[in-house]
Amino acid sequence: MAAPAGPAARPACRSGESRPRPARRPGRTGRRAPRDGTSLRLLFWGFLKVALPERFREQLEAAGELGVETAWYNDPAAALEAVAGCEAIWYHLPIEEVERVLGAGPDLRWWSVVSAGVDGWPLELLARRDIQLSNGAGLHAVPIAEYVVMGILALAKRLPDLVHGQDRREWIDTGSCPELFGKRVLIYGYGLIGREIAARLRGFGMEVTGVRRHPGQEAGVIGVGGWREQLSDADFVILSAPLTDGTRALIGAPELAAMKSTACLVNIARGALVDQTALVAALRSGTISGAYLDVTEVEPLPAESELWSLPNLFLTPHASSSSTEFERRAVELFRDNLDRFRTGRPLRNLVDYEAGY
Amino acid sequence: MAAPAGPAARPACRSGESRPRPARRPGRTGRRAPRDGTSLRLLFWGFLKVALPERFREQLEAAGELGVETAWYNDPAAALEAVAGCEAIWYHLPIEEVERVLGAGPDLRWWSVVSAGVDGWPLELLARRDIQLSNGAGLHAVPIAEYVVMGILALAKRLPDLVHGQDRREWIDTGSCPELFGKRVLIYGYGLIGREIAARLRGFGMEVTGVRRHPGQEAGVIGVGGWREQLSDADFVILSAPLTDGTRALIGAPELAAMKSTACLVNIARGALVDQTALVAALRSGTISGAYLDVTEVEPLPAESELWSLPNLFLTPHASSSSTEFERRAVELFRDNLDRFRTGRPLRNLVDYEAGY
Repeated sequence: MAAPAGPAARPACRSGESRPRPARRPGRTGRRAPRDGTSLRLLFWGFLKVALPERFREQLEAAGELGVETAWYNDPAAALEAVAGCEAIWYHLPIEEVERVLGAGPDLRWWSVVSAGVDGWPLELLARRDIQLSNGAGLHAVPIAEYVVMGILALAKRLPDLVHGQDRREWIDTGSCPELFGKRVLIYGYGLIGREIAARLRGFGMEVTGVRRHPGQEAGVIGVGGWREQLSDADFVILSAPLTDGTRALIGAPELAAMKSTACLVNIARGALVDQTALVAALRSGTISGAYLDVTEVEPLPAESELWSLPNLFLTPHASSSSTEFERRAVELFRDNLDRFRTGRPLRNLVDYEAGY
Repeated sequence: MAAPAGPAARPACRSGESRPRPARRPGRTGRRAPRDGTSLRLLFWGFLKVALPERFREQLEAAGELGVETAWYNDPAAALEAVAGCEAIWYHLPIEEVERVLGAGPDLRWWSVVSAGVDGWPLELLARRDIQLSNGAGLHAVPIAEYVVMGILALAKRLPDLVHGQDRREWIDTGSCPELFGKRVLIYGYGLIGREIAARLRGFGMEVTGVRRHPGQEAGVIGVGGWREQLSDADFVILSAPLTDGTRALIGAPELAAMKSTACLVNIARGALVDQTALVAALRSGTISGAYLDVTEVEPLPAESELWSLPNLFLTPHASSSSTEFERRAVELFRDNLDRFRTGRPLRNLVDYEAGY
């Protein structure tokens, strides 16, 4: 753990071990000068002002005294008002409002979001203003992993046909369906979500290879340098990587052509990781066998999109992270980070502004 | 392993370690008297006559020389003809035909079926005629376990709603869905299928308790004496037991009432394990939250049954064992048992006529 830096320090924000700084709000009454580093733990108790979404108020208050001055908001106008004088914000509004809210909060030092991906966020502006951005990495891993298994089973077992058979009150013959057992899976993006996916699929007797930028020495994990060579071996290719300049249209016509004709593509990350036009062509021509998408290039997907009715495409409405456990986990993460922020310890889930996630 | 018994021995058939006897067909030319027990291995090579379903001919022949005289059949009339003079049959016709085929095969000593359950079979008659019955236990474990996970995910994530949303080209809001993670599962019937189910559900972070007649010392496995006390703790109750006098209507109104109102019932075994009328009432009144059935009391389920459209009942057409891997596994099992039968070793998967499975 890095030692707390003095108020004058302005380190660049980096993920993980970035050097933290204590919250500070000059000019407030009752403030005492720190005697030493550790006294910072108490110094700001009660003097920190944080903007929080009303949606989480009940859960936050049920979890006990926050020990900070709170400004609750529930819409963009209220957020603009609430953020004035705040050093921290838990942001839960549309991304389009981010820059306006940033402009209304000149004292902001920490911006907390619950999404895992921060594609589209003004990372350069946040870096320039020296505001730390922490994301929701890990909050969604369990429900997304469960959705991935559902999507794979839906493709393998012709699940929509089974639902439609029930709709028609028909005891249909689905014929013989493939098993997951013994099949090979390639997971592009082997972070918290990718690992939760892998754990479940290994329970099915599937052989999993993870792909990540820094593979290390872990068995079954490879680097991004060699991942394309693995495409032709995989029965399922799963995307669980952030959307960055490096992953945009990661799966295009060449990658689809490299896949087995019996293979399926799964995307629960961001729609733009896949060249949607190329995917439609590949599904129509039988280049690959099927796809499960929880995300699309434009969301909500317009009613006229051909994706809705494409044969062997199973589609869910960006719902994979939906979970009754989400608010509990989000509150736990925020409270832990709030305590870290207040006491000058490194925040969890800091976004690396250079990497973009 | 029991030593091969002489031709005069007529032990009762029991599961597992039942005493085998060599195949014998008196009166055939070219037959030599056995010099000792081991010579039986060669003695009947080529003289054994076996009735086999045409459906598996290609796979059986691809797997190599059977070394027996084969009589192929593809319908009940052909089976009656084929079984004459046969000492073994791989039976793959409707259960209603069993007794007629038995009557046409006075020399039968071994009857092989691919279903896991043998409820409805004339077990007493087979025992009286001293014919061994081997079933397909294990052949279906993997695909059924995969279907169970699909059924549980369908209930938890409102999967039919997601399919219907896609049908309507609507980006629906499914709201927050429960996770499988951390939930408790009770599996009644903890044989080959139950264990495959458990392995997959543990990969989701679920806590599994198995119920079986002879629980032994295994952690997480209890006997049938105490299983009802566990009903109130379970989030999912899964039935994977054979249908016997002891399991008929195992889940009735009292058992449903003992379950949590948030719990779900899963039946992939036999429809008659559940009192269907009581289940309909429980789903209508909210006594339990949902059910997934791959089996019903009458199959195919009549179109007028209210099960088709019951809220929160997910139904599949006895398809859970369907698998592209089935024929390969069935051929492997049969060939192994054929070799055992021919050489006087104990057969795998022998049905225990007293237990009824």
